[in-house]
Amino acid sequence: MTRFHLNLSLMTPGHFRHAWRLPHVDPLAYLDIDYFRRLVTIAEDAKIDAVFLGDGPALRGEIEDAPGTGLDPLILLGHLAAVTSHLGVVITSSTTYNSPYNLARRFQSLDHVTKGRAAVNIVTTGTPAAAANFGLDEHPDKDTRYRRAHEFLDVVTRLWGSWEPEAIIADKESGRYAVPERIHRIDHHGEFFSVAGPLPVPAGPQGRPVIVQAGGSAGGLELAARFADVVFTVAQTRDQAVAFRDDIRRRAALAGRDPDEVKVSLGVVVLVAATAEQARQRAQDLYATLPIERLSTVLTGNLGLPPGRFGPDDPISAADLPPPVPDQAFSAGFSASTRALIGQAPHTPRELVQRSAGGAGHRLLAGSAEQVADDLEAWYDAGAADGFTIMPADTAVDLESFATLVVPILQKRGLFQSQYDQATLRGRLFGREPG
Amino acid sequence: MTRFHLNLSLMTPGHFRHAWRLPHVDPLAYLDIDYFRRLVTIAEDAKIDAVFLGDGPALRGEIEDAPGTGLDPLILLGHLAAVTSHLGVVITSSTTYNSPYNLARRFQSLDHVTKGRAAVNIVTTGTPAAAANFGLDEHPDKDTRYRRAHEFLDVVTRLWGSWEPEAIIADKESGRYAVPERIHRIDHHGEFFSVAGPLPVPAGPQGRPVIVQAGGSAGGLELAARFADVVFTVAQTRDQAVAFRDDIRRRAALAGRDPDEVKVSLGVVVLVAATAEQARQRAQDLYATLPIERLSTVLTGNLGLPPGRFGPDDPISAADLPPPVPDQAFSAGFSASTRALIGQAPHTPRELVQRSAGGAGHRLLAGSAEQVADDLEAWYDAGAADGFTIMPADTAVDLESFATLVVPILQKRGLFQSQYDQATLRGRLFGREPG
Repeated sequence: MTRFHLNLSLMTPGHFRHAWRLPHVDPLAYLDIDYFRRLVTIAEDAKIDAVFLGDGPALRGEIEDAPGTGLDPLILLGHLAAVTSHLGVVITSSTTYNSPYNLARRFQSLDHVTKGRAAVNIVTTGTPAAAANFGLDEHPDKDTRYRRAHEFLDVVTRLWGSWEPEAIIADKESGRYAVPERIHRIDHHGEFFSVAGPLPVPAGPQGRPVIVQAGGSAGGLELAARFADVVFTVAQTRDQAVAFRDDIRRRAALAGRDPDEVKVSLGVVVLVAATAEQARQRAQDLYATLPIERLSTVLTGNLGLPPGRFGPDDPISAADLPPPVPDQAFSAGFSASTRALIGQAPHTPRELVQRSAGGAGHRLLAGSAEQVADDLEAWYDAGAADGFTIMPADTAVDLESFATLVVPILQKRGLFQSQYDQATLRGRLFGREPG
Repeated sequence: MTRFHLNLSLMTPGHFRHAWRLPHVDPLAYLDIDYFRRLVTIAEDAKIDAVFLGDGPALRGEIEDAPGTGLDPLILLGHLAAVTSHLGVVITSSTTYNSPYNLARRFQSLDHVTKGRAAVNIVTTGTPAAAANFGLDEHPDKDTRYRRAHEFLDVVTRLWGSWEPEAIIADKESGRYAVPERIHRIDHHGEFFSVAGPLPVPAGPQGRPVIVQAGGSAGGLELAARFADVVFTVAQTRDQAVAFRDDIRRRAALAGRDPDEVKVSLGVVVLVAATAEQARQRAQDLYATLPIERLSTVLTGNLGLPPGRFGPDDPISAADLPPPVPDQAFSAGFSASTRALIGQAPHTPRELVQRSAGGAGHRLLAGSAEQVADDLEAWYDAGAADGFTIMPADTAVDLESFATLVVPILQKRGLFQSQYDQATLRGRLFGREPG
């Protein structure tokens, strides 16, 4: 394979969550199905591999200054798949707050309904607000969540495989529809789940839906090495990204898999303008939307720094940082990514917040279409990723700009597909199907 | 209102589950999205109010001789809503095997995505096979299931109402997106659930999704009286249907509601042909697909008759029937419906199985288009229902025949709408929105 994969986030109003404040942005777009239909049409015209939505099952604390997660991604992306024919749909789902039988059946069903474009992005969900919506007084700790996620995916993948390919015979003469001996119960009894199976639905066009894993903690990496087809990751420095990809490939090999069976998709927040100068100006406009005091406080807190010690414009150097906490509540991947940046040179909270689109962690890449294409090519050539999850800075502008200005450059360079040459998402990721 | 509502079941291959054996039927149609897209297009062209799918989260024992429930209806109908613009989608969901937060958020999301066409058909699920897929050694008894369903719907409806209409202000100048004091936690702590709330998504176009309730037991009727916008019911005799509708309206009034807020949709299995004689012939062809020995045994068992006492052709009279068991495993509505038929005159198991499309309970109505229209009109005029859930006998034939042959007659008679005059499903049901 000499080209990379592109996955496109539909997060609205953008990965700068406060982009709704800009004059051209509709603050209710995140609830508007016609807007999303337009986005996926643009994405499919550009031959993007898949679209994606992050998620968490709770109202975010930031609702006072920005829209939260909003619509359930299973509903939104399942619906949007009907107005496209090739675009994959990567749907974030929590293993902590779903049951494996329902999830397995829903994604197996989605694979039929989309003719092989279903992908589940497995997360364990890290917020106490979610726990309180599901009857838990306390959020389960990271270790417990990942033990549950392991068992969850073990059950889900066995349910997906519960029908042999020749189970349905549909012999009209005898009236025999299926051979029950070819449809297997799984009879799982584990720490978290007891699930008899089988599913009421046979395997879909992909053999099984694509599994994406997004957590960067030790538990997340183990889960990815064992189950993931694709790993979403975050990096502010190229060296960090290369090291992560080497590590995940090594872990996959240790788990007995071919390292090429695990694709790394690196998140990058993209802002595209006609010229570098216009991109700088648009970045300034987005920075001006940020509640910088609050975001600086959140960021320094996530780094384990004492409250009040660093204002938005006080440089933080590597020596200021406490050692990383292994089972911290904050995302391990985002934490490592910010630390890597400070490791290169001191940065102020303001700079860190701006370079990560508000402090969520992913690297902001702002420039002309050529500059953006050059950057992605350089990171790809360095072995930083097998593809990219493109996160529009301001989705109302940057999704279309990326699709119509950057993608043609990547296609001309032979870095990205100019047509969909496989029917299923799995086929495009691995050049063969089913997996 | 001088006209009735029509809801159309997409069950495939048909309410005669063994219709897959007929020469013209594709036995894999129940997994084929292109087939379903065609069905909903036909339904929308006929101005049908909504389409519907029953469901149970387990593989059915009958897989040896007929397809089971198959695709998850949330996935299938959510997807199909994207290729229609007015048709409501009524999605069967189990209160026993879902969590109220996820369900509330998904249907609230679906209401946005469909612009006000989302309906949830609440069932408590009556099969031990489902329990074994969700970590339960034993299926919870009916009383426990209905207590849970009550609490479930209480939580769901409060979550749906957790945002005040004016919660989002989106003031670009100040950066204030929403007023947190207008978005309310529900802080529910009950017997089955603890749910903090609120949802991350405000109310959709219907105010709240339409709630359908389908169970005919005492617990089901109480649930319907309190929460349901629509009650699905079953009746083999017109008197039984009239009595049921009177009863549910009385119960709604006792619960403090206007009886007109609860619409009764009566299930009827429809077989339509050009002439009465052709309809009779097609019915014979369908009867020939039935595994009559097994279905007779199931039917007599469900009636509480001793095994082996009645063969397929032995008449059962009212005097043979044991008293009804209040908390039986089998559907209370289906049982009452079969008993009412036997109460009119003795029937053999074969006749009962045939008249209920294989023994599932709903009345088979077979005839020419005029005959079918006459029958529906007569039942409606008698006060048997506010509308009908049309269940095609052989979906590959009867869905289109009903839509293109029967519906125009009903429209000409002024019994059914000739156009969609309200944007939302709730608006069509109640002539106003939101509810």
